[in-house]
Order: sequence, then C-alpha cells, then structure tokens
Amino acid sequence: MKPYVIGVDLGGTNTVFGVVDATGNIIQEGSIKTGKYKSAAEFVNAGVECINKIVEPIGGIDNIQGIGIGAPNANYYSGTIEFAPNIPWAHNGIVPLAEMFIRELGIPVRMTNDANAAAMGEKLYGVAKGMKNFIMLTLGTGVGAGIIVNGELVYGHDGFAGELGHICMDRSEDARVCGCGLRGCLETYCSATGVARTAREFLQKTTRPSLLRNKPADKIESLDVFLAAQKGDEIAKEIFDFTGTILGWACADFTAFSSPEAFVFFGGLCKSGDLIMKPIEEAYKKNVMPLFRNKAKFVISSLMDKNAAVLGASALGWV
Amino acid sequence: MKPYVIGVDLGGTNTVFGVVDATGNIIQEGSIKTGKYKSAAEFVNAGVECINKIVEPIGGIDNIQGIGIGAPNANYYSGTIEFAPNIPWAHNGIVPLAEMFIRELGIPVRMTNDANAAAMGEKLYGVAKGMKNFIMLTLGTGVGAGIIVNGELVYGHDGFAGELGHICMDRSEDARVCGCGLRGCLETYCSATGVARTAREFLQKTTRPSLLRNKPADKIESLDVFLAAQKGDEIAKEIFDFTGTILGWACADFTAFSSPEAFVFFGGLCKSGDLIMKPIEEAYKKNVMPLFRNKAKFVISSLMDKNAAVLGASALGWV
Repeated sequence: MKPYVIGVDLGGTNTVFGVVDATGNIIQEGSIKTGKYKSAAEFVNAGVECINKIVEPIGGIDNIQGIGIGAPNANYYSGTIEFAPNIPWAHNGIVPLAEMFIRELGIPVRMTNDANAAAMGEKLYGVAKGMKNFIMLTLGTGVGAGIIVNGELVYGHDGFAGELGHICMDRSEDARVCGCGLRGCLETYCSATGVARTAREFLQKTTRPSLLRNKPADKIESLDVFLAAQKGDEIAKEIFDFTGTILGWACADFTAFSSPEAFVFFGGLCKSGDLIMKPIEEAYKKNVMPLFRNKAKFVISSLMDKNAAVLGASALGWV
Repeated sequence: MKPYVIGVDLGGTNTVFGVVDATGNIIQEGSIKTGKYKSAAEFVNAGVECINKIVEPIGGIDNIQGIGIGAPNANYYSGTIEFAPNIPWAHNGIVPLAEMFIRELGIPVRMTNDANAAAMGEKLYGVAKGMKNFIMLTLGTGVGAGIIVNGELVYGHDGFAGELGHICMDRSEDARVCGCGLRGCLETYCSATGVARTAREFLQKTTRPSLLRNKPADKIESLDVFLAAQKGDEIAKEIFDFTGTILGWACADFTAFSSPEAFVFFGGLCKSGDLIMKPIEEAYKKNVMPLFRNKAKFVISSLMDKNAAVLGASALGWV
C-alpha cells in the first residue's frame, strides 16, 4: 500500500484536487476551473497537470495508491459522467472520465457522485464515523443524497441510486416543476433554489411586511431568507418552517425504507441551524411510524468547512 | 455443514415448519396453530414437538444446520418478536423467540420478518435468483417489503427497515387512517384490506351499477373486486387502476432510493395479473425520474404456490 491517495471534488464551477494521507489530512491541494475546457480531453490534460504539481512535494505519482473522484451524475460502476447539465463537456453525452485518467496516470481511478463522496467523508472522518446505516442529505443548488446501508454505499442496479431529491412530495396538479422533468420533487422545495422559490411565492401571497421585500423578488437567495429570519422576520421564519416540514416528511419515509441511525445534513442551508433543523425534527416526529420514533439522530455535517467532498472521494482511492 | 435446515413461516393463523435440503426442496412439513397457545413458552413447546416429528425421517435434529424463522414484527438483530398485533402471545411485549428455541434445541436459530423471508426465498429460489438489488412487495392483509441492496437484506440500524407499507401517499387531512397510527400510509390503499376499503368508497360515491353491489358493502373483499373486474365490471376495474396507480407512484420513489433491478410482487392481489400490474407500470413510467425509465422489471413471485416464506426463512438456517 502506498502512503497517499488523491481525492477530487469535481463541481460545476471548480474541480479541487487534494493529496490525502492515511489519517485523512489533506496535505496538498490544487484546483482548476471545471467549465473552462471545451472537451473532456482538455479537462483531463489540465487535471493531470494539476495532479503532477501537487504530488511533487510528496515524491511524485508513484506514492499515490489511487484516485477517487466525486462528480455530479457520476456512475460508480462504469466510471462515467452521464449527461451532467452543469458541465459543458459532459452535458450531452457519456464521458468515461475514470478510464481517461487511468490512461494518463497509470493508477486506479474510481468515481462516484458528489453526495456519495460526501457521505463517505462523513463516515470516515465526520459525524457519521463508524455508523453502518445513515443517510446524508446535501442541500445545495439541488438536493443530493448518499445512502449507507450495512456499511456500504447504495448504488443500486444501475449505479444511480440515492436520487432522493427526486421523490415526490406533492402530487397535485400545480406542484412545482423540477429540472428533471417531474413535478413535486423534494428538490423543488428543499434546495437553496427551492427556498428562494418559496420566498417569492410567500411574498406574493400576502401583503404583510417583510425584510425580504427590500430586494427585487427575483434576486432573493436562500441566504437572504436566513438573514431576515435571524432578525425575526415572520415570513422568513415561515419559509424555514415550510422547508423543514417537507424535509421532515421525506425523512420519515426514508426511515421506513432503511431505518438509518442518523440523518446527516450538509450544505449552505444547514448553516441556518435550528431555523431549519427544528421544523425538520418536528415534522419527522409527527410523521414517522411509531415503531421508529425517537431513534434516528439529526445532525449537521462536521466537515462543511473542511473539504468533505475531497476527503470522501479520496476514500475511493484506497480500494 | 449438516445436510438440512428448517424454515419456519410464523403467520397470524398457522405456523408452518419445513425441513429444507441444500437445493431448496421442502422434504418434510408440519404445522401448528399460532394463536392456540396462551404463552410464548407453550407455543415454543408445541413448535419443538412439531420439529422433532418432522426431523425424525431425516435422522433427527443432529442433521439440521440451523433454523430460520420468518415472523411479523420480528427483529433480526435481537431475535425477538415485538408487539405483533395479530399474535396473542406477542402482542403486548417483546418475546425472545430465537433464544427460546435455541435453549430447547441447541442449534442456531435466526429470525427475520415475513416479508424479508419471502425476499430471501425469491433471491435463492425464485424470480429474483442472482439479483443483487431488488424490492419485494407483499400485498396481503397489509403491505410488507423486503429490500435487497448489494446482495443483502436491508435491516437498518434497529432491525426494522423495509416498512414500505407505511410511507405516506396522501398528506391531505382526510387521508385514510392506518393501523400504525399514521394517515395516508401505502398499506391503507394497496393491501387487500385497502382494496376492499376503496371498493366501499367508490360504490358510495356514485349510483352507477356494479356487480359489487350484489354483496353488502361491509362484506366485500379484494377477491370480489377481482372476480367483478374479470367480468368487465367498470367500477371494479377503476378500483384496480386506483390501487395500481398508487403502487406505481410508490415504486417510482423507491427507485430514487435504491434503484432496484426489479420489483417482485407477492400475495393474493397479484393473482389479478394485468388488472393490477398494468396500472402499476403505467404510473411508474410517468412518475419515475427519467434517468431510471425503462430499467426496473416488474415481476410476480414464482413461489406463490410453493411455500416462499418457509423457503426464504430456511435460508437463514445456513448462516
């Protein structure tokens, strides 16, 4: 076994490469702009250049056991990125990214989706350390999930399991339209984007005063809702209650599925703390099957300020 | 390794014991009445007597590797039956049934819930042979589930995972009340009891003629709905469409969770064939995330006339 692995957090904006040691310290880091490249080949070339730079201080690529990549729409089984809407060189096709890095670097490369990588990070180095059954929910632009069952990530038959942002929370005709093509998806309510959407809806429904009215409605972001709620703004607090309630309902159904020891929340929205966590837990308690009541823990990621995605992805490098 | 195991299907009415060989043949069988006994101890005594009888022809208990029991409200981790509403000697407490049989027989005894046992049966001997990811749905008095992920049953942190009959399909105020204490549970719509409930509701809502009106409303069973639908009764067919649609919605959400290779359906309702399967598949297709479309298979158990529960439970005996 070689002493280091590389973890890669491939996001819509940046791709961060980190050299990680056996105890989970990121000891070298570099990054490139994901969208700057026209083709996957150009992206891989830039990535390899960045990797070669960060492995220099630790004695070169020969000291790297393997590479783990966390990326949107990544398939663990095939090592491909498939139709990723926010990546220009992968939005309309299937890119065999793992294979391309293997060809250039000659070491094992494994890939999984970003939420799965974050779940691995929590399991190895974060609040879910040692847990064999938990569900990680990433509340960002979308809602992602990494599900751990019997100590392992759930990939499903096709490698795409854990799309919990797309379970249906509203089957009425006027349910929100989701980017995936369905209606009423959890993501349309409980992502940062969903919270902003709720804000616009709530402001339109009433003429009550709100700090949120100080900004043009189409410019409101979830952070504005947080700041307003902190100042006691009633409508902002109602937006959090609404969002948290839907998340609590969803978690109650997830428990019926895999009865996790904990739900781990990750992403900007969680920085709102009790504003979002209290309504989640209240709705959960009311809606979970009595058999499961008071069992699951609700915790916020401990790796949000560290690079959970790089750490999590790096775990795949040891395999 | 000894040549035989015993599988036990502990149901509300009968408990069936079967001696099973290594290729999955039930070569001896016996049964007792589950509810006839006042205490768990009396039940275990009668069970041991029955076991001793059926192992006689194969050379006695020394030729049995272990016993697997499938039972309602059974906990795999603790080997207990907990608050099982339909079992008089286990309805208001925790019965350490596995331990009690071990004490009497001196061989390993493992227990799991009945739907999990059925899933194991399908995996080893039925339509899910060789599948590493599938979901078994048992449509009986209730709706049970056995979930296989990465080749293993999902037990969750507390041993009670897979309660898919209790995910919420209707969050409106007038959603159906479930025996579990919640409202809108899948089970209240898609169990045999749920189908009968739908029949009563549909008949009351309209004055349209129906064969189902030939029976007092409170005596209608799911079988009556099947027989009427077979004869072309419109309301009966609408009842199946309604039931199947809700099941299809649920399966679409289950796919977002574990992306199974197949859904395996078991229980009396499946004998209605296309009447129930077609609306399931149609609703599924419309409601599953496009990423998963046309992937999962929908199949009916191949072990319904054999004893799937005994076979499935017996698998635990080899461990």
